[in-house]
Amino acid sequence: MSEALKDKISITLNQNPKPLIPKEEITFGKYFTDHMLEMRWSAKGGWKKPEIKPYGPLMLDPASLVLHYGLECFEGMKAYRKNDGEVVLFRPEMNMKRLNTSAERLMLPTFDTDLVLEGIKELVRLDSRWIYKDEGYSLYIRPTMIGSEATLNMTSSGEAILYVICCPVGPYFGSAVTLLANTEDVRAWPGGVGSKKVGGNYAPCIKPAYDARAKGADQVLWLLGDDHKVTEAGTMNFMVYWINSDGDRELITAPLDGTILPGITRDSLLHIAGKIEGVKVTERIFTMSELIKAQSENRLLECFGCGTACIVSPVKAIIYDSKTYKVPLDPNNASAQYSPLARKLYDQLLFIQYGKSDEYQSWTPSIKL
Amino acid sequence: MSEALKDKISITLNQNPKPLIPKEEITFGKYFTDHMLEMRWSAKGGWKKPEIKPYGPLMLDPASLVLHYGLECFEGMKAYRKNDGEVVLFRPEMNMKRLNTSAERLMLPTFDTDLVLEGIKELVRLDSRWIYKDEGYSLYIRPTMIGSEATLNMTSSGEAILYVICCPVGPYFGSAVTLLANTEDVRAWPGGVGSKKVGGNYAPCIKPAYDARAKGADQVLWLLGDDHKVTEAGTMNFMVYWINSDGDRELITAPLDGTILPGITRDSLLHIAGKIEGVKVTERIFTMSELIKAQSENRLLECFGCGTACIVSPVKAIIYDSKTYKVPLDPNNASAQYSPLARKLYDQLLFIQYGKSDEYQSWTPSIKL
Repeated sequence: MSEALKDKISITLNQNPKPLIPKEEITFGKYFTDHMLEMRWSAKGGWKKPEIKPYGPLMLDPASLVLHYGLECFEGMKAYRKNDGEVVLFRPEMNMKRLNTSAERLMLPTFDTDLVLEGIKELVRLDSRWIYKDEGYSLYIRPTMIGSEATLNMTSSGEAILYVICCPVGPYFGSAVTLLANTEDVRAWPGGVGSKKVGGNYAPCIKPAYDARAKGADQVLWLLGDDHKVTEAGTMNFMVYWINSDGDRELITAPLDGTILPGITRDSLLHIAGKIEGVKVTERIFTMSELIKAQSENRLLECFGCGTACIVSPVKAIIYDSKTYKVPLDPNNASAQYSPLARKLYDQLLFIQYGKSDEYQSWTPSIKL
Repeated sequence: MSEALKDKISITLNQNPKPLIPKEEITFGKYFTDHMLEMRWSAKGGWKKPEIKPYGPLMLDPASLVLHYGLECFEGMKAYRKNDGEVVLFRPEMNMKRLNTSAERLMLPTFDTDLVLEGIKELVRLDSRWIYKDEGYSLYIRPTMIGSEATLNMTSSGEAILYVICCPVGPYFGSAVTLLANTEDVRAWPGGVGSKKVGGNYAPCIKPAYDARAKGADQVLWLLGDDHKVTEAGTMNFMVYWINSDGDRELITAPLDGTILPGITRDSLLHIAGKIEGVKVTERIFTMSELIKAQSENRLLECFGCGTACIVSPVKAIIYDSKTYKVPLDPNNASAQYSPLARKLYDQLLFIQYGKSDEYQSWTPSIKL
């Protein structure tokens, strides 16, 4: 660690690091690394110096705002290990920026993104043994900010804690999923906070996910409005690849109109897809009736969710109004296990995320080990 | 404490009780009593025995679901001290029932309402010195349930903590407030969880409240839809007293259609108002244009918010589309400081809450001191 960094971040090493979890036992979000980053803020004193310290519990007053009014926001990002052992992040400045946007909406304090990113890099460096070498493995990084002032008054928080924890994750690209288009519960709405990564957007989505499973689906497809606009799937952005009414092969996803999370995987995939010959990329509102029509006219090519955790999750069927609409995984291959564009995008994005693409080097800043 | 209760609840007394806060320094939700009630649940072991112990911090794993996904719900209730020194609660079974409804929606565990209510009574009994004798003072009771399992997986929580903290509160009935009808932010939506007392409904409302203050108002009037349906005010239910188009004196409030919190003060006031001669009580959807029309035709008599904390909060003006619409406080008295029906309902409800009404004794179960 450089002297310059020591001035900026204080570090207390974990003297009792845990044994590594065997690769095959890794479950998303259940096992955490040896350290965490913590930075405390108060209205009086501003941000204190960030601190890396052993992973451990937070002591919170039972009146802390976060425990009553959902005063919290978070991010999800990943670190990857390249073949040569080097560790890289993926577009981390976008996560830092989005966390500040979420914090601002909740009147939590904004922060110096460069400093926090430096802290995250140091944290990942210290815990880099948790990034397994094998393809598909990575380190999931969870920056979180909570309003910690002890008051039941519904006010902006005079105290906050920004902290970062990490957990190892394995390869995600699983078998294709079935979605239940939910016509009762609504995830986000105009004038709400659906475009922000705030805690309160998530808790209400847990029960609908279980309800979907009880009906034979894996995840929820979230709709909006009487015309059933297609918005997101589970906790992912949602993309459809179809032949549109003009006869173009088009990758379409809902626009960032305030009800959609501005996903960094979403943004990256749109960027990559835009460079694929013969694929038109469109962000616009589209509805279930358009989707069903395309399916019935054999114009629907693929559907998939996308997000930091899964990267790409292909969809094989959508249940809507008690009917099951099959989504072709590969129109040219009835026994295909995943859709060709989804797979292509997944492979290309993973290639970039592992720092293998010369063109996208700027997306994967490296961490000095 | 009875032997029977000792079997049900374990108690560790606070050996260092704090000095009482001088009455005039009391601020809502800032000073807490000496004890708290805590009851822990796990999917494996179910609910453990409730515990009363000294008020103190919770140790939470930084990965606890409550800190990431807003997995939390709460209640607000009050204990009052009667003239004879006896302490009573106000319709507490309704809070217990509503907390279970909120918990269920978030897939948090439901609980034995009788047992928790017994625990709350014991807690209030132990901390009853914090209920100041003077009229208008009471003890605000905050039951809270949080999902405490340490996982980043967006799943139903395998662990939960139900806890109850208390703070003294003073008389609330203040001067009449100005509301800003918010045409941008939306508090709740059909298909959302606006009718549940869950944390995530509240954090997004903090900034709009500050924005309203910057525009000269005290609180937000929450609207819904293109037709600007009138829903709630701040964190209160909202009531309008007007002469309707049939010429009737009518107290109107939004119906419990899933976007409105089923307030216990709301329910109580509708009940009391229904017995006042010449006042028609109506729960139906109504819009800003109806409200403005009534105001312009001098049919608007009063507006007020209502909730557990304030009980009744009279409104003197509504800012809407940059225009300020005055709400008469008392059409018969230009220098009135508050509206007559609001005051009448406030006085009657307080009379009941202090256990003075024979008719409503069943609403105020007493706590053996």
